[in-house]
Amino acid sequence: MSLPDNHPLIDGRTTHSPLVAAYSGARPSRRPVWFMRQAGRSLPEYRELRADVPMLDACLDPAMASEITLQPVRRHDVDAAIFFSDIVVPLRLAGVDVEIKPGVGPVMGAPVRTADDVARLGALTPDALTPVAEGVARTVAALGGTPLIGFAGAPFTLAAYLVEGGPSRDHLAARTLMHADPETWEALTTWAADVTGQFLRAQVLAGASAAQLFDSWAGALSLADYVDRVAPASARALSHVADLGIRKVHFGTGTSELLGAMRDVGADVVGVDYRLPLDEANRRLGGTTPLQGNIDPALLAAPWPVLEAHVRDVVTRGAQAPGHVVNLGHGVPPETNPDVLTRVAQLVHDLPLDDRP
Amino acid sequence: MSLPDNHPLIDGRTTHSPLVAAYSGARPSRRPVWFMRQAGRSLPEYRELRADVPMLDACLDPAMASEITLQPVRRHDVDAAIFFSDIVVPLRLAGVDVEIKPGVGPVMGAPVRTADDVARLGALTPDALTPVAEGVARTVAALGGTPLIGFAGAPFTLAAYLVEGGPSRDHLAARTLMHADPETWEALTTWAADVTGQFLRAQVLAGASAAQLFDSWAGALSLADYVDRVAPASARALSHVADLGIRKVHFGTGTSELLGAMRDVGADVVGVDYRLPLDEANRRLGGTTPLQGNIDPALLAAPWPVLEAHVRDVVTRGAQAPGHVVNLGHGVPPETNPDVLTRVAQLVHDLPLDDRP
Repeated sequence: MSLPDNHPLIDGRTTHSPLVAAYSGARPSRRPVWFMRQAGRSLPEYRELRADVPMLDACLDPAMASEITLQPVRRHDVDAAIFFSDIVVPLRLAGVDVEIKPGVGPVMGAPVRTADDVARLGALTPDALTPVAEGVARTVAALGGTPLIGFAGAPFTLAAYLVEGGPSRDHLAARTLMHADPETWEALTTWAADVTGQFLRAQVLAGASAAQLFDSWAGALSLADYVDRVAPASARALSHVADLGIRKVHFGTGTSELLGAMRDVGADVVGVDYRLPLDEANRRLGGTTPLQGNIDPALLAAPWPVLEAHVRDVVTRGAQAPGHVVNLGHGVPPETNPDVLTRVAQLVHDLPLDDRP
Repeated sequence: MSLPDNHPLIDGRTTHSPLVAAYSGARPSRRPVWFMRQAGRSLPEYRELRADVPMLDACLDPAMASEITLQPVRRHDVDAAIFFSDIVVPLRLAGVDVEIKPGVGPVMGAPVRTADDVARLGALTPDALTPVAEGVARTVAALGGTPLIGFAGAPFTLAAYLVEGGPSRDHLAARTLMHADPETWEALTTWAADVTGQFLRAQVLAGASAAQLFDSWAGALSLADYVDRVAPASARALSHVADLGIRKVHFGTGTSELLGAMRDVGADVVGVDYRLPLDEANRRLGGTTPLQGNIDPALLAAPWPVLEAHVRDVVTRGAQAPGHVVNLGHGVPPETNPDVLTRVAQLVHDLPLDDRP
């Protein structure tokens, strides 16, 4: 453990927080809940603050990133903040020509498809990460006992964007490359693992009490491709924070078939998307792994009795796991009424926290 | 069985074809292979013929639809044609304001989200299906002993387009509706089941020797939502051809968790996407169901030795099922070199057709 003395897990601010307890398989003082993409377009205060600021500029402005990170914590009484950023931030900081086009997503100046393209990718210097560390430090200073979760994209998803040059439905070019030119694929995902791992490490050293790796597109892969062509890089990414003693969460959508493999790259907690009930996810993971999830975001727009029954069901199923942090099974849809999220958080906190069976 | 006397399954032209044999669990004379989206943009002769003709106009021009359907059969020596159409054709024929925007997909003039919206949906009259029946009849007359597969979309996927008003990544509005207003959802999917079922029946009566139902977006659903909110409508769609004695194939992507449920709506054959190996799919289905699939389309762009090894693996795994029709695990990507498809078909035909264990 090489966390600085003023880190919240060292000075004790977040050590016994509900989130850290549940991630560790210990009994939390209340049932923890937060929402993926809780900081973002569902909040009017976010839309006002972001206004016309380009996404990556907002991520790299320490004051703005910090304020956006704090907004949902103030509003919803959630048990964690997650650092407002984007998975391509470390690419930008390493010199990749990338921007985020509204309504489209990350778009590269040029795709990265050959050994030469990969060889030209730059390194991520510690100095470049200064705005990230500063944003985290500001946030953690304001959060008090509420833990901050560090945020990073997994190498496959980053590589998929780099190879495709932008978003795609089937990630065909990336999935072709992993078989057509395995050496270039390995070099690319190794590079992505290192920059995203450094990005995550900077957040933890600056005060994040946990870390979540997002492999948004992993659900496009067969288990064999995941294990053979992707898992080694994801393990390498997480190895960048392995010595820091924080809990590591791993999440992707459409990953019902991959949960064990995603845990086995070095994750302590598995995030489960809305498709698979948590009791079944727990069974597949052998009953040994704390879970996070998995309220269906589609139900946030349903009448309250429908949503409430669903949240209760998620909580009941999650109670079978050796730790459960309530969350959505995918990000908050932009059109979500934020009052509904506040009410869900309150419901989760009000439900009795039974002893586990 | 109420097929007309000149139907290829009645006059015997396709009765013993490799496709129909494999779909029926009988030993085929050669290992059958065809490719989803084999008729389409991968073929220069298709791009030349379609030129600036809007997609739905092409589908409803009997001569053009027939010619496009025949192109890949001539070129690749595949064991089936699949009728060139689009899943929204029956919506257009029932009076829905829908067009297919190039690069986007089906776009509705207005979304269908309320009970009133559903009540206003029109019926599909037999007359409206005349161009479809004529296109099929022309095709079948030209195909000789090669069977034609009828083509239709499943009610969930159609309803998802109708509710969203166009393509979407997560089908949130549709998935909200199924829980927020189950009666409207049931009415909508029942309507969709009937129009798509009538569309399929018209193709079979006009000469199609099998039928495939495409539920493109079913992989967005949990098993519980699929079984409770979608399967009844899919069963209703297939019931429209249940008395005709043809084999019914059911396919969707990302459906590894749904295979049994998709079979149990009345399918004889299950199409498997590229994510799940066929031996595992066969195990999940209890070893009783012929399979179709599942070459990874991403490998069509890989060097031939990589693709060849993959095709051999698919064939070996598929041989465990009580019937296997080789296909892709998703549609042909538009940028595919058609010569590769021809070579794959030849490889599949050249591999020894061992007795099943």
